[in-house]
Amino acid sequence: MFENAARTELSTLGEFGLIDHLTKNFELKNNTIKGIGDDAAVIKSTENKVTLVSTDWLLEGVHFDLSYFPIKHLGYKAITVNLSDIYAMNAKPKQVTVSIGSSNRFSLEALEELYSGIQLACDRYGVDLVGGDTSSSKQGLVISVTVIGEADESKVVYRNGAKPLDLLVVSGDLGAAYCGFQLLEREKRVFLANPQAQPDLAGHDYIIERQLKPEARKDIIDLLEALEIKPTSMMDISDGLSSECFHLAKQSNVGITIYEEKVPIDPTTYNFARELELDPILTALSGGEDYELLMTISQSDYKKIENHPDFSIIGFVTPPEDGMNMISKGGQKHTLKAQGWTAF
Amino acid sequence: MFENAARTELSTLGEFGLIDHLTKNFELKNNTIKGIGDDAAVIKSTENKVTLVSTDWLLEGVHFDLSYFPIKHLGYKAITVNLSDIYAMNAKPKQVTVSIGSSNRFSLEALEELYSGIQLACDRYGVDLVGGDTSSSKQGLVISVTVIGEADESKVVYRNGAKPLDLLVVSGDLGAAYCGFQLLEREKRVFLANPQAQPDLAGHDYIIERQLKPEARKDIIDLLEALEIKPTSMMDISDGLSSECFHLAKQSNVGITIYEEKVPIDPTTYNFARELELDPILTALSGGEDYELLMTISQSDYKKIENHPDFSIIGFVTPPEDGMNMISKGGQKHTLKAQGWTAF
Repeated sequence: MFENAARTELSTLGEFGLIDHLTKNFELKNNTIKGIGDDAAVIKSTENKVTLVSTDWLLEGVHFDLSYFPIKHLGYKAITVNLSDIYAMNAKPKQVTVSIGSSNRFSLEALEELYSGIQLACDRYGVDLVGGDTSSSKQGLVISVTVIGEADESKVVYRNGAKPLDLLVVSGDLGAAYCGFQLLEREKRVFLANPQAQPDLAGHDYIIERQLKPEARKDIIDLLEALEIKPTSMMDISDGLSSECFHLAKQSNVGITIYEEKVPIDPTTYNFARELELDPILTALSGGEDYELLMTISQSDYKKIENHPDFSIIGFVTPPEDGMNMISKGGQKHTLKAQGWTAF
Repeated sequence: MFENAARTELSTLGEFGLIDHLTKNFELKNNTIKGIGDDAAVIKSTENKVTLVSTDWLLEGVHFDLSYFPIKHLGYKAITVNLSDIYAMNAKPKQVTVSIGSSNRFSLEALEELYSGIQLACDRYGVDLVGGDTSSSKQGLVISVTVIGEADESKVVYRNGAKPLDLLVVSGDLGAAYCGFQLLEREKRVFLANPQAQPDLAGHDYIIERQLKPEARKDIIDLLEALEIKPTSMMDISDGLSSECFHLAKQSNVGITIYEEKVPIDPTTYNFARELELDPILTALSGGEDYELLMTISQSDYKKIENHPDFSIIGFVTPPEDGMNMISKGGQKHTLKAQGWTAF
């Protein structure tokens, strides 16, 4: 039908360009406060409260490789990476729905393992599994998760509130999940070349766990509350620090300057990146899947997080005309690119 | 990992047995009123209001065949069949999220068509598209939809409220979508055998439209409100009247008796079933995808819907020990089976 019509390849638009393009004519008519374009949609539920909704999925062959991804961990990760989107709005997740498409390649025992990981995550984060179903799939394993959260309307933090001079802050450390992925891919290649070889994972527990069993930073949201900090903008880091900075900057209409030496990288990550002959900063800028929180906070909150072990101040917000920059360890200013791999 | 462990084939449990089995140890801890097991999850949002959430997806090769399914219609149907789950709770859908997985087999123009169908449905039913994204897929087109709705808590109708002597009522007519599916499959086979053949769809508009462009019965929910009827139980008919009756009966702990002659079947459906040498009642009992509403109402509401063109009273609720029965046109009592095809 449409095969004969004009054909534009999807690759000509990036993922975000594509969804923006496809939904540009949609209008919001109901009690929707925020639609597409943030970590979660925000819906007014009462005078002061909002409901938040975020949905995402994991497709076999695109988002995970079961040859080294334990299926219980996959269930756990499917939940935590979705909860992360609600925390990134400074809100609390309460319910999840999980739909599974699976071919008969999977046994009941395999799906039980998957659900035991889902249950572990639900228990750990205090969310209810409230819906979803199972379906056959001709296409490997497909997992779709929707998270519902709640918050006081006044507490929700969007991507668009960053102001010049705000501090750019990140929780935890970056680049580990990407290094874990590279390690697992390397050991898979070794195994395929020589099925007798044992995987060499010794000493790499941290980066493997960051890839296979990421946590959502509920603790950071609780901590922000305890410290009485409301970030001016926030999002989670799923695609790499660099591309997330571009999202924040675009939505807030600001520029951002990062200091390379301030970007938190665990020693294990650093050493493994070196082993791969990668510049460690690139694993943080472009690696992705860290599920840490990137936020901007007002200068007036500086004292509250100065030297706090869970936060790193990595840069600051600038007027938009200053653009996107990184100051290297040597003190030189580089233009930051959304995909950092080719930027240096 | 799990390949060497005990292996139970998924086919040993039906779809509903499977999801029940996998989630049987999950507990509800938050403001969740109803979790898995109804058309939608129900979450308390305020003193008197609830938020409803339902999620479902369409997988290419399992739920649709693009060789005859126009992609714009597919977008429309992906929305309406999900809205149907919220109406089936006697609630109003307000927001949807849509996630698309697509391979590079699809052009931008094809996805634009898909979204134009999504937009048409959103406009028609007054819902906001508030989230979702696009992802690559190695597995054909995958569409995941989540619907968020709202209702007064006191108005929500579950599957578990049917009482003996209640009337069993269905909206519209049944079996047409299944006949439309059979017709399209037949013409596809003809086309594959002889690509010069033109599809013979004349006179079959109704059954084709019921398959390719199903509507959700918003009008019935409005009508119930106008008539001041709150059904004692309700669900939508996605899998066929017979299997849905089993769901209602199981959840309400009742029996159900249907009168064959009362089951509404459009003349077009009837004639096409005859052409296929199928008993027309089977298209209604087991065909599925009609997205009509099946409900039970109190005898005291009988006068309000007697002779109403949008409703058919097709049977009544019995004590559970009476079981599941259909009284044939000849007056004989048959045991109803969840899958009616082999039952007669």
